[in-house]
Amino acid sequence: MGTVVALGGQVGGAKLAEGLYRLRGAKLAVIVNTGDDYEYLGLPISPDVDTMLYALAGIADANKGWEPAGESYGCHGMLTRLGGPVDVPLGDRALALQLLRADALRTERSPTEITLELAQRLGIEARVLPMSDDPVRTIVHTESGAISFHDYFMDLKCEPAVRSFQYGGADEARLSDAALDALHAPDLEAVVLVPCNPYHTLLPMLAVNGMRAALRKRGAPVIAVSPIIGGRALQGSAAKMMQELGREVSARAIAMEFHKLIDGIVIDSADQALAEGIRASGIEVLAVPTFMRNADDRLKLARAVLDFARAVRMRREIAVDA
Amino acid sequence: MGTVVALGGQVGGAKLAEGLYRLRGAKLAVIVNTGDDYEYLGLPISPDVDTMLYALAGIADANKGWEPAGESYGCHGMLTRLGGPVDVPLGDRALALQLLRADALRTERSPTEITLELAQRLGIEARVLPMSDDPVRTIVHTESGAISFHDYFMDLKCEPAVRSFQYGGADEARLSDAALDALHAPDLEAVVLVPCNPYHTLLPMLAVNGMRAALRKRGAPVIAVSPIIGGRALQGSAAKMMQELGREVSARAIAMEFHKLIDGIVIDSADQALAEGIRASGIEVLAVPTFMRNADDRLKLARAVLDFARAVRMRREIAVDA
Repeated sequence: MGTVVALGGQVGGAKLAEGLYRLRGAKLAVIVNTGDDYEYLGLPISPDVDTMLYALAGIADANKGWEPAGESYGCHGMLTRLGGPVDVPLGDRALALQLLRADALRTERSPTEITLELAQRLGIEARVLPMSDDPVRTIVHTESGAISFHDYFMDLKCEPAVRSFQYGGADEARLSDAALDALHAPDLEAVVLVPCNPYHTLLPMLAVNGMRAALRKRGAPVIAVSPIIGGRALQGSAAKMMQELGREVSARAIAMEFHKLIDGIVIDSADQALAEGIRASGIEVLAVPTFMRNADDRLKLARAVLDFARAVRMRREIAVDA
Repeated sequence: MGTVVALGGQVGGAKLAEGLYRLRGAKLAVIVNTGDDYEYLGLPISPDVDTMLYALAGIADANKGWEPAGESYGCHGMLTRLGGPVDVPLGDRALALQLLRADALRTERSPTEITLELAQRLGIEARVLPMSDDPVRTIVHTESGAISFHDYFMDLKCEPAVRSFQYGGADEARLSDAALDALHAPDLEAVVLVPCNPYHTLLPMLAVNGMRAALRKRGAPVIAVSPIIGGRALQGSAAKMMQELGREVSARAIAMEFHKLIDGIVIDSADQALAEGIRASGIEVLAVPTFMRNADDRLKLARAVLDFARAVRMRREIAVDA
């Protein structure tokens, strides 16, 4: 049983990471997108990191995975009475994490150290790692101008059509040492791109200095899991964005976004017909049920992904030996 | 109907201020102690100011006047799960105020401006004014060493015997312009020291640069209201502190703390027997029921205080004319 590195964010990604965590425990490292981070009332909010922490700690709400179960809104209600700002519906429990993060940042500790400590406080044995200790901010270029992803999401409800994405600061941002260490683990078993939006979750991660190079070292198979099932995104705006960017809305298009970086992709059984076309481009394919309704589904998909990675690895080793 | 200035803090003080507010509305200015302020998770907490805001906004909890009614503890619960710090039981609604204050302070606005804005957001027409925009921190010298009032209160539960108080920074702290303006109002009708702990609420205020001078100008009668009834403090540690400082625990001793600063004192009917002794020291006395159980009691006491102040003023004017 080797080290597994998961890359990504969002609720779907956190679900698969949770499955992987149940299989690999402390051997799992999750590198998380921080391109969607923003400030609210002076608090540094890191939505993908928090969603991941809630999932791995087993305290995520079953329906609203981006917040802790049993969340309340006392602070938000009072802010509403006080005339705002209330554009961010930050819950009371979530605030605890934000306050601890903000307080720790004032002591000049790095986002990586702080996130590891938050994970530890939540009893998580896996390493949860922001992709970089340097700021990266995803900018959405839309038909009506450029805007931060956070504002695009909260203020514009993802409505204006997207034209392109820009990962502000990514050129200068360095993959964190802890993330590099994980990707260079001597026992690296697999790197898994968990199912999430490519444009504002995975691609900003790949834009960070050192990430593509670390993946290209091919210490282990790199496996993506498609967030698109049967031409639709199960959650979020991935399908809408693909359409607006002129991509086919399909698992095949997802595979192409990561062409030459991934060794294999896990697509949904419903998309079985796409397998051959994807294989033709040199990417191995596993088609299994990928929709995660419950903990059992998450575990099953995680197991399928790691089995697939092992098979890919063995075939590659055989190929090298031949 | 002239301007009334209330000085003080704490729950009892806020109750009388609320009564005064119902009588004078926008003509009331409340100058509030900030010597008990502290930081919690990087948030600047101003307990006396917040208690006053809740009271005047009519949203204070009926029993726990230092917090808003309907308070919840979602954030505190999560902080507990995260391993603290949880020494301050800060509620979710209170957090909204703290976050707005912290955020406003980062924009370099003064505590006075920020407090006035918070009051306005809460629909309060009276001016609520921190005593100074400069920091003052009350230090309690106890038998076991010196400690901030906040730590004395929260960590030590006010247990070690007090020897003396020190108002750190008060020498350099300047009474705010807004507080000075209120005390110099041409139509100043009365200055009321609301019932609260002398040692860590009123005396730090009197120690601020400019406060004693402004009171000594005698633009209007200065009236204290005793927080001691029948030899006991109804709330808080005033009686305990008086004992430890070697004072008699009585309304008379309260009058003596403010000797030469106040023109009159309102004591409880139960302490009627002390009136003559207090008058002998040149301080006028009104003995009425001072225990405030409800809004009606608060209004009644406020009216009695202002009537008393008017009588004191008239007697003084008569004396001058004679």
